[in-house]
Amino acid sequence: MTEEIGVGMVGHAFMGAVHSHAWRSVHRFFDVPLTPRLAALGGRDAARTKEASAKYGWAATETDWRALVARDDVHVVDICTPGDTHAEIALAALAAGKHVLCEKPLANSVAEAEAMAAAAEDAARRGVRSMVAFNYRRVPAIALARAIVAEGRIGDVRHVRAVYLQDWLSDPEAPMTWRLRRELAGSGALGDLGAHIVDAAQYVTGDLITGVSATTETFVTSRPDGDGRGEVTVDDAAVFLARFSSGALATFEATRYASGRKNAMRLEVNGSRGSLAFDFESMNELSVFEADGREAGFRRILVTEPDHPYLAAWWPPGHLLGYEHTFTHEIADFLTAIGDGADPSPGFAEGLRVQRVLAAVEESAARQSTWTTIGDAR
Amino acid sequence: MTEEIGVGMVGHAFMGAVHSHAWRSVHRFFDVPLTPRLAALGGRDAARTKEASAKYGWAATETDWRALVARDDVHVVDICTPGDTHAEIALAALAAGKHVLCEKPLANSVAEAEAMAAAAEDAARRGVRSMVAFNYRRVPAIALARAIVAEGRIGDVRHVRAVYLQDWLSDPEAPMTWRLRRELAGSGALGDLGAHIVDAAQYVTGDLITGVSATTETFVTSRPDGDGRGEVTVDDAAVFLARFSSGALATFEATRYASGRKNAMRLEVNGSRGSLAFDFESMNELSVFEADGREAGFRRILVTEPDHPYLAAWWPPGHLLGYEHTFTHEIADFLTAIGDGADPSPGFAEGLRVQRVLAAVEESAARQSTWTTIGDAR
Amino acid sequence: MTEEIGVGMVGHAFMGAVHSHAWRSVHRFFDVPLTPRLAALGGRDAARTKEASAKYGWAATETDWRALVARDDVHVVDICTPGDTHAEIALAALAAGKHVLCEKPLANSVAEAEAMAAAAEDAARRGVRSMVAFNYRRVPAIALARAIVAEGRIGDVRHVRAVYLQDWLSDPEAPMTWRLRRELAGSGALGDLGAHIVDAAQYVTGDLITGVSATTETFVTSRPDGDGRGEVTVDDAAVFLARFSSGALATFEATRYASGRKNAMRLEVNGSRGSLAFDFESMNELSVFEADGREAGFRRILVTEPDHPYLAAWWPPGHLLGYEHTFTHEIADFLTAIGDGADPSPGFAEGLRVQRVLAAVEESAARQSTWTTIGDAR
Amino acid sequence: MTEEIGVGMVGHAFMGAVHSHAWRSVHRFFDVPLTPRLAALGGRDAARTKEASAKYGWAATETDWRALVARDDVHVVDICTPGDTHAEIALAALAAGKHVLCEKPLANSVAEAEAMAAAAEDAARRGVRSMVAFNYRRVPAIALARAIVAEGRIGDVRHVRAVYLQDWLSDPEAPMTWRLRRELAGSGALGDLGAHIVDAAQYVTGDLITGVSATTETFVTSRPDGDGRGEVTVDDAAVFLARFSSGALATFEATRYASGRKNAMRLEVNGSRGSLAFDFESMNELSVFEADGREAGFRRILVTEPDHPYLAAWWPPGHLLGYEHTFTHEIADFLTAIGDGADPSPGFAEGLRVQRVLAAVEESAARQSTWTTIGDAR
Repeated sequence: MTEEIGVGMVGHAFMGAVHSHAWRSVHRFFDVPLTPRLAALGGRDAARTKEASAKYGWAATETDWRALVARDDVHVVDICTPGDTHAEIALAALAAGKHVLCEKPLANSVAEAEAMAAAAEDAARRGVRSMVAFNYRRVPAIALARAIVAEGRIGDVRHVRAVYLQDWLSDPEAPMTWRLRRELAGSGALGDLGAHIVDAAQYVTGDLITGVSATTETFVTSRPDGDGRGEVTVDDAAVFLARFSSGALATFEATRYASGRKNAMRLEVNGSRGSLAFDFESMNELSVFEADGREAGFRRILVTEPDHPYLAAWWPPGHLLGYEHTFTHEIADFLTAIGDGADPSPGFAEGLRVQRVLAAVEESAARQSTWTTIGDAR
Repeated sequence: MTEEIGVGMVGHAFMGAVHSHAWRSVHRFFDVPLTPRLAALGGRDAARTKEASAKYGWAATETDWRALVARDDVHVVDICTPGDTHAEIALAALAAGKHVLCEKPLANSVAEAEAMAAAAEDAARRGVRSMVAFNYRRVPAIALARAIVAEGRIGDVRHVRAVYLQDWLSDPEAPMTWRLRRELAGSGALGDLGAHIVDAAQYVTGDLITGVSATTETFVTSRPDGDGRGEVTVDDAAVFLARFSSGALATFEATRYASGRKNAMRLEVNGSRGSLAFDFESMNELSVFEADGREAGFRRILVTEPDHPYLAAWWPPGHLLGYEHTFTHEIADFLTAIGDGADPSPGFAEGLRVQRVLAAVEESAARQSTWTTIGDAR
Repeated sequence: MTEEIGVGMVGHAFMGAVHSHAWRSVHRFFDVPLTPRLAALGGRDAARTKEASAKYGWAATETDWRALVARDDVHVVDICTPGDTHAEIALAALAAGKHVLCEKPLANSVAEAEAMAAAAEDAARRGVRSMVAFNYRRVPAIALARAIVAEGRIGDVRHVRAVYLQDWLSDPEAPMTWRLRRELAGSGALGDLGAHIVDAAQYVTGDLITGVSATTETFVTSRPDGDGRGEVTVDDAAVFLARFSSGALATFEATRYASGRKNAMRLEVNGSRGSLAFDFESMNELSVFEADGREAGFRRILVTEPDHPYLAAWWPPGHLLGYEHTFTHEIADFLTAIGDGADPSPGFAEGLRVQRVLAAVEESAARQSTWTTIGDAR
Repeated sequence: MTEEIGVGMVGHAFMGAVHSHAWRSVHRFFDVPLTPRLAALGGRDAARTKEASAKYGWAATETDWRALVARDDVHVVDICTPGDTHAEIALAALAAGKHVLCEKPLANSVAEAEAMAAAAEDAARRGVRSMVAFNYRRVPAIALARAIVAEGRIGDVRHVRAVYLQDWLSDPEAPMTWRLRRELAGSGALGDLGAHIVDAAQYVTGDLITGVSATTETFVTSRPDGDGRGEVTVDDAAVFLARFSSGALATFEATRYASGRKNAMRLEVNGSRGSLAFDFESMNELSVFEADGREAGFRRILVTEPDHPYLAAWWPPGHLLGYEHTFTHEIADFLTAIGDGADPSPGFAEGLRVQRVLAAVEESAARQSTWTTIGDAR
């Protein structure tokens, strides 16, 4: 077993559970240079935090994230809280010399994200690493897709078609959650789902979005909340057109109202010589079209071969991976970067770039969908 | 065999071939009140028209469409020419008291379409019928989809996702055709493919688009043309956001650059209680989701049962239909309307409505994607 | 238009309808050396035959098939009757010098099929042609599959997996039909469905079945028939193991009790270097696997390209064909063979070969599934 | 955390790796009455066992399985070795009062399996539990399928269609492994893959196989082995027909030569009122057909809802599970049974039942496929 590295994690809901599993398991499958020690779990409610800590295998708990960041046995801070606290925790952790893994979207505003990216850049000079948790990059099929585009095998990219469809709000009487409050979540489907497909589309194409035209919608404006009703202050759905710097045209859609679509994070890329298609609901598959004669067709690749990204660590071909593997891969990459003294990707600057796209979407939606360029578009 | 009705068709390329088959075959499968007689085929080149006439089974030929319209044995004029001649021929035929079937898009401009709709309305008062050939409405699965929405089974429509993807221009060296010249075709992918999905989306939802935000692109601006190169003066691709009068959000994409997608006319509709999904590349199937308990899922309906739309005329379950059947259905409906003294649907007013959407797309694209409402939006 | 050839068809039920369509349409799409003239339709009931004749476009009717065969204007006899009459009609027609197209299975017994094959061989010496209507060979995807195997692209064939699944008898109260009476149909699912997959498997692999082990079942032994009940005297389902002369192992299943499977004629072939998979319910597709490095996968070929078998005659890529096209292709091939003075395939000898396999299946099923070799197995 | 239970595991190859993960993780997701302690790992090679032990998280190692069984801190013995040692280890462990989890197939012969089942029955009287590791029963979709059949929702079962297709031997030059030696593995594809589908088919239908007709094949009889070649002494593929006690007809196929099929463990069940279909390559899905009116179709259920089997422990809908989850579920069930003082399922008697079917397959294959009944068939 390699040298231990102490981890402190803030937040113990859905993301906390899946991150815990990855921290516990990563070194059982990957030859990482550092072995995680689950040092401390942070949460505001002492009892619930202790319960989560026991269940997920953490050695200690803290009810104040500042105390967690300050612990000597914590070398990495993993931020799994709602977006409103990302900036504050990340800035403090980086200042304290702790490596930071931060859930997406990076922040609730461009200003916060800018501050975080600046702090991360500064920290990197001191050997302190930071990464945004865009876990879909670590789906083997997505990583393979990027490699295929990078090799030029689909030619010049013409079209990107990205949707992230869920349906848990289709029922107008589904209850309130923090995810529907702007002050906590920053935005709705846009930040939660749209952030993933913006990042994935840029990652797979190796290109950046330069402008958007958008509209957003809140279909149901209040929902059951305890004994009363709470106001929904975020978007239920966001749709936008986009351009990449290559000139490629794109459509994006993020919604929680696509009845029957449970986690349909889908990406299709059409190039001058081929195409790629992915659907997270069949996450072990990548469809690839290469124009080559009379018997061309989309090839359904079961991305479970030992020479596919991340797969050497797992099972024989055809023995599928699941959702949580993406986090194990993410943390393997993060630990490897720390061990190598290298900046992991996506870093906070990449998280900021996504944040700028989300902000442009909101701006365009507020201005009658008028085309809106991304601040630092190259 | 029922009373004969003489048909004159102008144009004998792709659409002419498939319309000929439908005129020849419709009464062999459907109990239509009138039996078509393939009286005359019109085309500018005498030799090629004669050849086509012999191959497709027409009794005579005309090189001047005016002569064809004037023939006593022609009671129906079927317009299968490029869009630049639709208005002129249709107006003359209606004036001469001939029923008109006109290929889509109805015209190359809103002004032409308005004139045609006005003439059709006037003619209808005299018992002369007219229809636009939006054949995708006659795919049994599409007709079934409309029925399911109309029955309220998917609840309130929230999202429409419509694409029409082809790839015959992916190769930058694919040659020029009339379809790439604005003066003949009116527009590119927008009018050719976008018109179909606009009509289908409105047909299936039973609702109208009220506004759009759009952008279009011409990826390859000149192509091989004889010994030289010709300028492409239409869009290669058009993408747009849209709203329906119900408030539903929609995305549309029409392109000829989606490598590997041959004729992927796809439509998904998400409602508050269910969803529908269709892909023309699997045209005999409709996927339906109805939220109903723990074992909900998209149901792949093979739309080949005798009680499915149009299917009583055909083969036993599971014996698939193909592309040309949509035209046979269209002409069966057209003849039935003529026989019944009723206006067929979609009439020219519906074709005009689609034309207005296409015009709004071009207008929005020219104004930085700014939201553009449809002229007569209700 | 090429020289006419007069056709006389016996039988006007399902097969009669689809054959009529093919005879009427074939020369509109294919450059056949002879143009069919629908001379006479034969049927036992004068009124119903006349009605069918008018609907399907035949010039005359006959209530005695012998009179039909004897007509001077009939040069081809097309046999669309139940299997019990195939031999008698075919022998008479061949003796009269008429070309014969006979529906499958060729006969109700090996003895009949032997007589037919002998007569066909004899007739061929006099320039009289005969063919069995195994229409699934004319599915473009099946024809493409054969070509791929023949080119050696999947290597040595190891496995064949063939099923033909329907479900119209799943309901125990579905009514009697002639297809459930041994004296008319010869056998049940075995001859009706099993014959197709035996022929298709031999056709695609280019190899012959040498032995089988089988069992059959009649799940429901009597069914509603008019006011009473009729006895089902054929198999409802037949399953068998088989060997090809190459040593390849195969499984076959034919049933009318596979709830939800409407016309699932499926074939998969696994070779040492690749595989092929087909399902008639997606008849325009062929899935091909070629083992070639890390990104291998089943390629879904949309078999609608102009250089795919039969497709040059039809529509642009992605515009699907349906069930009846297989008959149009079959008749195009038949007319071409007649015009060329060549024997069409599959001839009666091939039909006899299938008949021997069906007989071996029944024999094995009667002998506790003991392995049973095919009479003339090479 | 609940009371600890010490686990000793013998074998540390593929099965050892995946079992280790399950033992480590089960209590992090499931409320099990006993928390596993990974006490000792057994393996013949000291160095390799120590390495595996460190990687997988075991506290100690033993090179003699007898020593492992004898340890006071081992209360459960998990047998992950080739089949030739199952009986000996299991009998010793049960005699020592240790609960036993044994990989499948239960043994290499019916005689061994009988001894094991007898010992397990005897041990159960003393409160010592045993289970066979048919992990595919713990795929949520398979468990859901069983529930649907048990509720009578597909009516009387008519057909079962089960295949388990892999392709790692397609290449004749793929190297030797212990899995190709009869003295170690007992049989080839039959015991390795066939055992799973026999168990799954019996589990899902809730019925037993009463007889079979079979044939087996070894396509490649020697393979590279170190510097020379080794003889393959097991079957490469096994195909068989079967009957269930209900009268249902079944086909089974197990092969390692199905090029392109990586882990296609597929099961389809057709009943008088509906059908079920499953493919492990899409393991998070179950397709269900229920005959109910004009819009029936196979429903693709994404088996990821909280009220689906095992899913309450995992992620939100649409966030897929993978292969190793089946082992976590299996061990959760095993620990629950131990905690409850109940016999887990499948017990050794069920493993014996599968063994008898495998033996009947080999017997039938040796007797010209003659129908062979299962020893204790009810």
